[in-house]
Amino acid sequence: MIALFSHVKKESKINGLIMSFIFWLMLSEVPVARGVWPLPQKISQFAERYPLNPGAFAFLYANNSQAQPGCSVLDIAFKRYFSLTFPGYSGGKERRGGRLAENNSSGGYTYALVVMVQEGDCDGYPNAESEEKYSLSVSAGCGLLVAKTVWGALRGLESFSQLVYQDEHNTFFANKTEIEDFPRFLHRGILLDTSRHFLPVQTILKTLDAMSYSKLNVFHWHIVDDPSFPYQSRSFPHLSNQGAFHPSTHVYTQADVRRVIAHARLHGIRVLPEFDTPGHTQSWGKGQPNLLTPCYHGGKPDGTSGPVNAAAASSYQFMTRLLKEIHSVFPDSYIHLGGDEVDFSCWKSNPDVRMFMSKMGFGSDFTKLEAFYMESLINITASLNKTSIVWQEVFDYHEKPKVMSVVEVWRGGCYLCEMRKVTRAGLRAILASPWYLDQPGPTHDWSRYYNVRPLAFTGSEQQKQLVIGGEVCMWGEYVDATNLASMLWPRASAAAERLWSDEEQTSSVSDAFPRLAKFRCRLLRRGVQAGPLSVGHCRQEYQDV
Amino acid sequence: MIALFSHVKKESKINGLIMSFIFWLMLSEVPVARGVWPLPQKISQFAERYPLNPGAFAFLYANNSQAQPGCSVLDIAFKRYFSLTFPGYSGGKERRGGRLAENNSSGGYTYALVVMVQEGDCDGYPNAESEEKYSLSVSAGCGLLVAKTVWGALRGLESFSQLVYQDEHNTFFANKTEIEDFPRFLHRGILLDTSRHFLPVQTILKTLDAMSYSKLNVFHWHIVDDPSFPYQSRSFPHLSNQGAFHPSTHVYTQADVRRVIAHARLHGIRVLPEFDTPGHTQSWGKGQPNLLTPCYHGGKPDGTSGPVNAAAASSYQFMTRLLKEIHSVFPDSYIHLGGDEVDFSCWKSNPDVRMFMSKMGFGSDFTKLEAFYMESLINITASLNKTSIVWQEVFDYHEKPKVMSVVEVWRGGCYLCEMRKVTRAGLRAILASPWYLDQPGPTHDWSRYYNVRPLAFTGSEQQKQLVIGGEVCMWGEYVDATNLASMLWPRASAAAERLWSDEEQTSSVSDAFPRLAKFRCRLLRRGVQAGPLSVGHCRQEYQDV
Repeated sequence: MIALFSHVKKESKINGLIMSFIFWLMLSEVPVARGVWPLPQKISQFAERYPLNPGAFAFLYANNSQAQPGCSVLDIAFKRYFSLTFPGYSGGKERRGGRLAENNSSGGYTYALVVMVQEGDCDGYPNAESEEKYSLSVSAGCGLLVAKTVWGALRGLESFSQLVYQDEHNTFFANKTEIEDFPRFLHRGILLDTSRHFLPVQTILKTLDAMSYSKLNVFHWHIVDDPSFPYQSRSFPHLSNQGAFHPSTHVYTQADVRRVIAHARLHGIRVLPEFDTPGHTQSWGKGQPNLLTPCYHGGKPDGTSGPVNAAAASSYQFMTRLLKEIHSVFPDSYIHLGGDEVDFSCWKSNPDVRMFMSKMGFGSDFTKLEAFYMESLINITASLNKTSIVWQEVFDYHEKPKVMSVVEVWRGGCYLCEMRKVTRAGLRAILASPWYLDQPGPTHDWSRYYNVRPLAFTGSEQQKQLVIGGEVCMWGEYVDATNLASMLWPRASAAAERLWSDEEQTSSVSDAFPRLAKFRCRLLRRGVQAGPLSVGHCRQEYQDV
Repeated sequence: MIALFSHVKKESKINGLIMSFIFWLMLSEVPVARGVWPLPQKISQFAERYPLNPGAFAFLYANNSQAQPGCSVLDIAFKRYFSLTFPGYSGGKERRGGRLAENNSSGGYTYALVVMVQEGDCDGYPNAESEEKYSLSVSAGCGLLVAKTVWGALRGLESFSQLVYQDEHNTFFANKTEIEDFPRFLHRGILLDTSRHFLPVQTILKTLDAMSYSKLNVFHWHIVDDPSFPYQSRSFPHLSNQGAFHPSTHVYTQADVRRVIAHARLHGIRVLPEFDTPGHTQSWGKGQPNLLTPCYHGGKPDGTSGPVNAAAASSYQFMTRLLKEIHSVFPDSYIHLGGDEVDFSCWKSNPDVRMFMSKMGFGSDFTKLEAFYMESLINITASLNKTSIVWQEVFDYHEKPKVMSVVEVWRGGCYLCEMRKVTRAGLRAILASPWYLDQPGPTHDWSRYYNVRPLAFTGSEQQKQLVIGGEVCMWGEYVDATNLASMLWPRASAAAERLWSDEEQTSSVSDAFPRLAKFRCRLLRRGVQAGPLSVGHCRQEYQDV
């Protein structure tokens, strides 16, 4: 219909009837391609469209906006979104970030997106309660983006950038559009594992960029694990000196971590650090000799090590110091404490651990020892005013769920049963099970990640409200910087729409497919090496350099 | 042992006994890491090693070499292998490509690899019979590479480049080494599908580079298929104008094709074009309206098309003209005619086809029609002095196998049974079935491709000799430039070793693993985005740009 309209206009042979029809078209909502991924909660698009000249386009702060020029998050976002909105544009200098009044008279722009933020917290970090709702109206001459917070404004800028497209002559256009939008879930994350393979900082930063295109807002940094300990600790430098793949080339320095956190903040993304204990800690033992449990065989230590020694006071002292450091390095109010897949055989073999078990009255139930250990860590974390997240085993093993706050459900099988149990115990839940994107399997099956229904368990409305979101997990056994992007994108975007958008409006895989295919082409255009969904092409293919 | 040696030497505290031991070490073959992938037929490596100063290193033509400066293939290879042998070196100008005598007196180099080629065909193309054997000797002061052909010399240069490594101070070294090498199979290919997704020329060129690192020598270009026709034909420009995803951005021009062929030649790689008919031709129909069979439903054409109309004389005229063009564009003496997966239902529905069947006495056996069609194409190809390759169905359906030359076995199930049948009929065979690398499945399973035994069927020695090689197939449903490299490498290298090396010497997956892991790191260093094999790291990780 858009094509028809412009054609007819060019010919200038319009009788009254056609004119009325076109007028109706312009004001009516028409089924034009909904260009925004994930789908906004409410979007109306019209056939009327506006050519956008990048050289005469400006992002402007509204006069009554609490954020004004100097607001770091938005000043930088305006610059970034100028490039993202007008890819390939290399004409004169972009106009951006001025005050509305100032520019209105002298700016010389022909189109402005005016941004109004109700709370001007430009220097803080996004947090677990940050509001991301926004409204966006694109009309003749200007658009208006209204958000309570700068984080919501970032989401709106992303949507705006996705509304802009090029016609066959490469002219940029945006259609008349009204959007009211907010996320379905507050917690929409991606887990990266930097222990099984080291991911260069640049790779992490590019992943954060791509996350923001899908409105994902939590980078769950599974930073250390059995194979390597790349986190360069201030308090315990030996951990990475001995435990990293390489003590200088395969580590995250404090400056690296700050860079990741700062970059994430500018994209409205929280950095949730995970230091997984007491299992998954083989690499810790190299730089912290008495931390792990010595395993026994035939009455003697056999030279191997098990999980963190939960029977030794020194382990708790060490973890307290480390958690204090984590608390000070990572600004987010959540810390992920891990707690998954603890193998009890080494604890069982060790006489000191058995003696501790007996003293504590745990009998031979090693889940009690794990629960004791995790509870101690949760308490230390709470004393630092941080909220802890744990993997589901900690909930499964624990008789007193009330000490926990947030449980992440990751195991296969009936994960919805687990969601029901966790929320029935009054705990908040994050769903990860169906979104293990690293798993071998049909590489193309994005619909598997799309069709997840996180709330499809039997439970009260209150229980449902305890589901705070979900996470895509990209474990590192067979993933590194060479294939991370093509494995993540656009499949993680499928999960992202599930976590952001209204489930009823996004229940059809066949409706979603063309939108996702288009979104994937947009990702390529933005330099994200997103893998193909099925046979087809993009106007601009990914180019090897 | 190498480490011990250099340590002791540095300390200069060597008594006679240690000296004798070291002398023994230097002359003895020691189990140093065999750095060459695929494993040479015969390799002896010694502890004695030579520091190589890139600034004082030269590739030189031997005085008695038939190839001399001006030999395009080797002149360019010397330049290329200088960079590949000394990655990261950016000091002065490299020395290369001179005549031995000239440089010996005035060159000022401290190490030379002297290359002696017995046949000086520097301007030809590699072909199906090209000899690739070479011998390589690395000793103090110089190395000697002897090969019958320039193609063999290229393989030897690749091996030499893989012998060079850096110590912790980044000094380059090569150990004393003796190699006698030749390929087990003459045909070692990779199929790329440029129809389901368009692969930019740059991506193809980079794949050719990487192929040469694994000594693969056939690029099977499955250039067109149902989804798109990117080949820009001189005789039939409408085929790509109508049938490509885009008529100017998603096509291979004649210049592109020449570029690919020239690049392949310089790497000792043949370009084997496949124009698959009569099935897999939906895209052909767009630009060549009467080529495909109109399908009938309820006695009338239903608007859809089936395979090439094998009952129409015009189809044969068209194919003759197209094959003549292919003959002139692609210098290789082989053409792949396809012939796989022909769906007979459309032919069955069409009254003209049925009338032709009856006239030819084919009854209702449509395999006879396919055989008739393919035999015609084989004959046309033969009249152009080209050898044809067909997919296995053509053999399966054909009562007179003698008209065929080479059959490519691709179906699952008992592919060795098919290899037995094909060779028992006296035909040459290429094995592809176990090397479908695009298939969904555990992404990490390189050993699956390594463990293939192409000759493990019951048959005579003569039959075994008819197996000319194998091909890795990378179909394009879920593969494009974003993930091609990480899906191909290093898994195709596992197949490459199976096709090049002695099977008995390379029967152990656990022996191969550390060598392949090392080779994969070398690929990363060379800019190939090779995927990870399992948990671990490379000294230099892949860096996002």
